[in-house]
Amino acid sequence: MAPSKQTTRIIQLPPVAIFAVGSEVVQGFVINSNASWLAQQLAELGFDVVRHEAVRDDKDAIAARIRPCMPQGLLAIVCGGIGPTVDDLTRQAVAEALGRKLVLDKDDLARLQARYAAMGRDFPQGSEIQCMRPEGARLVPNAYGTASCFLVKHGNGGVAVLPGVPREMKGVFTNELCAALVAEFGSAGRFFTRELKCFGMPESAIDLACRDLLQPQGASAAILVDDAVIRLRWRARAADEAAAAAILDPLADEARKRLGDVVFGEFEDSLEGVTIAACKQAGLKVALAESCTGGMIAHLLTNVPGSSEVLIESAVTYANDAKILRLGVSQATLDQHGAVSEQCVLEMVEGIARQSCADLCVATSGIAGPGGGSDDKPVGTVWLAAWLKGKARAWKLNVPGDRELIKWRSTRSAINVLRVAALKGALPDRPAHWIVPP
Amino acid sequence: MAPSKQTTRIIQLPPVAIFAVGSEVVQGFVINSNASWLAQQLAELGFDVVRHEAVRDDKDAIAARIRPCMPQGLLAIVCGGIGPTVDDLTRQAVAEALGRKLVLDKDDLARLQARYAAMGRDFPQGSEIQCMRPEGARLVPNAYGTASCFLVKHGNGGVAVLPGVPREMKGVFTNELCAALVAEFGSAGRFFTRELKCFGMPESAIDLACRDLLQPQGASAAILVDDAVIRLRWRARAADEAAAAAILDPLADEARKRLGDVVFGEFEDSLEGVTIAACKQAGLKVALAESCTGGMIAHLLTNVPGSSEVLIESAVTYANDAKILRLGVSQATLDQHGAVSEQCVLEMVEGIARQSCADLCVATSGIAGPGGGSDDKPVGTVWLAAWLKGKARAWKLNVPGDRELIKWRSTRSAINVLRVAALKGALPDRPAHWIVPP
Repeated sequence: MAPSKQTTRIIQLPPVAIFAVGSEVVQGFVINSNASWLAQQLAELGFDVVRHEAVRDDKDAIAARIRPCMPQGLLAIVCGGIGPTVDDLTRQAVAEALGRKLVLDKDDLARLQARYAAMGRDFPQGSEIQCMRPEGARLVPNAYGTASCFLVKHGNGGVAVLPGVPREMKGVFTNELCAALVAEFGSAGRFFTRELKCFGMPESAIDLACRDLLQPQGASAAILVDDAVIRLRWRARAADEAAAAAILDPLADEARKRLGDVVFGEFEDSLEGVTIAACKQAGLKVALAESCTGGMIAHLLTNVPGSSEVLIESAVTYANDAKILRLGVSQATLDQHGAVSEQCVLEMVEGIARQSCADLCVATSGIAGPGGGSDDKPVGTVWLAAWLKGKARAWKLNVPGDRELIKWRSTRSAINVLRVAALKGALPDRPAHWIVPP
Repeated sequence: MAPSKQTTRIIQLPPVAIFAVGSEVVQGFVINSNASWLAQQLAELGFDVVRHEAVRDDKDAIAARIRPCMPQGLLAIVCGGIGPTVDDLTRQAVAEALGRKLVLDKDDLARLQARYAAMGRDFPQGSEIQCMRPEGARLVPNAYGTASCFLVKHGNGGVAVLPGVPREMKGVFTNELCAALVAEFGSAGRFFTRELKCFGMPESAIDLACRDLLQPQGASAAILVDDAVIRLRWRARAADEAAAAAILDPLADEARKRLGDVVFGEFEDSLEGVTIAACKQAGLKVALAESCTGGMIAHLLTNVPGSSEVLIESAVTYANDAKILRLGVSQATLDQHGAVSEQCVLEMVEGIARQSCADLCVATSGIAGPGGGSDDKPVGTVWLAAWLKGKARAWKLNVPGDRELIKWRSTRSAINVLRVAALKGALPDRPAHWIVPP
């Protein structure tokens, strides 16, 4: 993350300790992924995270862990144990650790009662606890569940309390607690984010193309890599969405312009999801001929609801006989060039196109390993072909990794070909990271 | 886990706090999965884990977290920070927290130097630190890396130090620290384990069939559920493998006898891996016709190295036209019964059998949702058919869950049909959890 004027100005923020409350975490039945996620988010806000702890559902134990944070000026961010059941004891423990009374927020209770009434359900006995917080604490609304959250400043630090369910926790943090932290500990407004997801270009090339955009004034930027999916993220403090847009939109728009169809989406978009949407939009029916990907292209595409409107079929022709019988690959091609060859993969894609009446097809044939490699065609050699309304072309890929990674990367490359072809109405030039120049 | 005489006898073991040392963990770049794994293992040894902490690579911070554990009689298990680099500070911090000197184990140093010599490499400067431990600590050898581990009893508790790399940590824990913990804190020998993995019977039915075996004398037992895969695990302390076998083998053997082909493997075996092996063993070639599973059966089977010797092809016929053209399903069947019907799935399996020359085939057709359901055929209605050398049969499944879970469960059910058919040489009766009785 490139440092910016904004992030250097907030260096006096309290150090943070992240607490996960829950016996299921301490016993190892749930991995504490909340702490990692929060640590990364907090770093982007300029907070220094100094440790994580996981504590059992035991009021005294929770209070005993939080209490010593206060004289040290720490901000304790506590996840979990805020529901209505008897083992939800975080509120009580925090009040005790701070030596403050737990008080009921009557407005918040009215909201919760109205919520139950709207669902046609009786208000469960004891549920008022979800609207209680230590005296002087600020309400942090929770649109994702019934239990309200809170933030309380105490000395130089304080305590923030969040839900334990990851989806709820992330929602409340992003949409409410960020702003509350800024209000209590900083003054430069809320944080706003833009994120672009890219596929088909290595990180180094993206970095080179967008270097100036990744060192912005008045915002922070990050380039995050999840295998071949690369995310560009900009974050800025601003008073409101309009002020944020003035800072962030020119950056994201310029990056989109430079990167073109390498950008496939934003935030939670998946490559297969946007590909199905692009095919639907373009009115294209799709068929596949898979060898080394072994059905994984079809599997990922059919994970997308509504994919049946796009995908006609996939011929997973693992054996050579199946390539001949199902796709009309010629015995001569297999004898002369082998199944992992430009000739074979072109015959495969033309075969599935001819037989399926699809508009857009891809085919894969490669060596996923661990066996089957040779000097000439080592493990990771993958041929990928595409066919769009009568035109075909093929690419040779050199895919690093083990068997599962080679399948996974070849599959994503094939899906990206479908996406770009559907968007452009033409077959792309370089749709994947691992293409070997002809 | 059923309590046993052995586990109740070790209740006076010290409570445990698990520490992960590493700034990358605290900053959220690495998820602390070591803590979950250790917590589960320690529970099986009879230890009560009371909390986890993740601490930065900072000597004073590490010492400050470990020091207060000692007057409380805790056993601190510390992972990470034991290598030779400047940010590896766990040894120094533990010595400081205990008020003990750090001493060099010359025999251990000779071993490490010999190891470098055997690799033909110079001994790196400063590497002696990896053979140092607090005075009075017991060496815990590390066959998985260069840094030796240790265990030191201190008051009623103490400190054990392990590597941070998960593979190393698990190896040292299982093969060395377990025995060292028994030697320092207990006296009943090492722990030995048997594990059976089951598919095709609900947990309640397995529990009923094996209830007496799950409350054994002289051992502990657990029934662990990962969706439809159910693991039975027995663990006993014994002086050696022969003594352990005398306790554990009769339990596991009897469970195998009662559960029959519901048991598909042990420990790390996967359903797809044992299925490919069973088909290879029986000399069976396999072909698939997939609709609602969308290629996932082929995808999982082709994850197994060597699956190309078994799998000929999968026809992923998502559209009705593809079912007609590729598999010879009749238009009349689709008109009268729909694609999600016994008739259709039988025609699919017979079609792929006829066209592929395989010995063993399965077909799936169902409603994965979220759309496409009706009162008559709600989301989760899945027909599964199998064909073995001329004989076919079909099962109706009622699969709970969302789209991805329905695909996943249908896929596993189909793979289990292949496995049992290959083992028995005949089509099974009830190969999946979700079969609706006819």
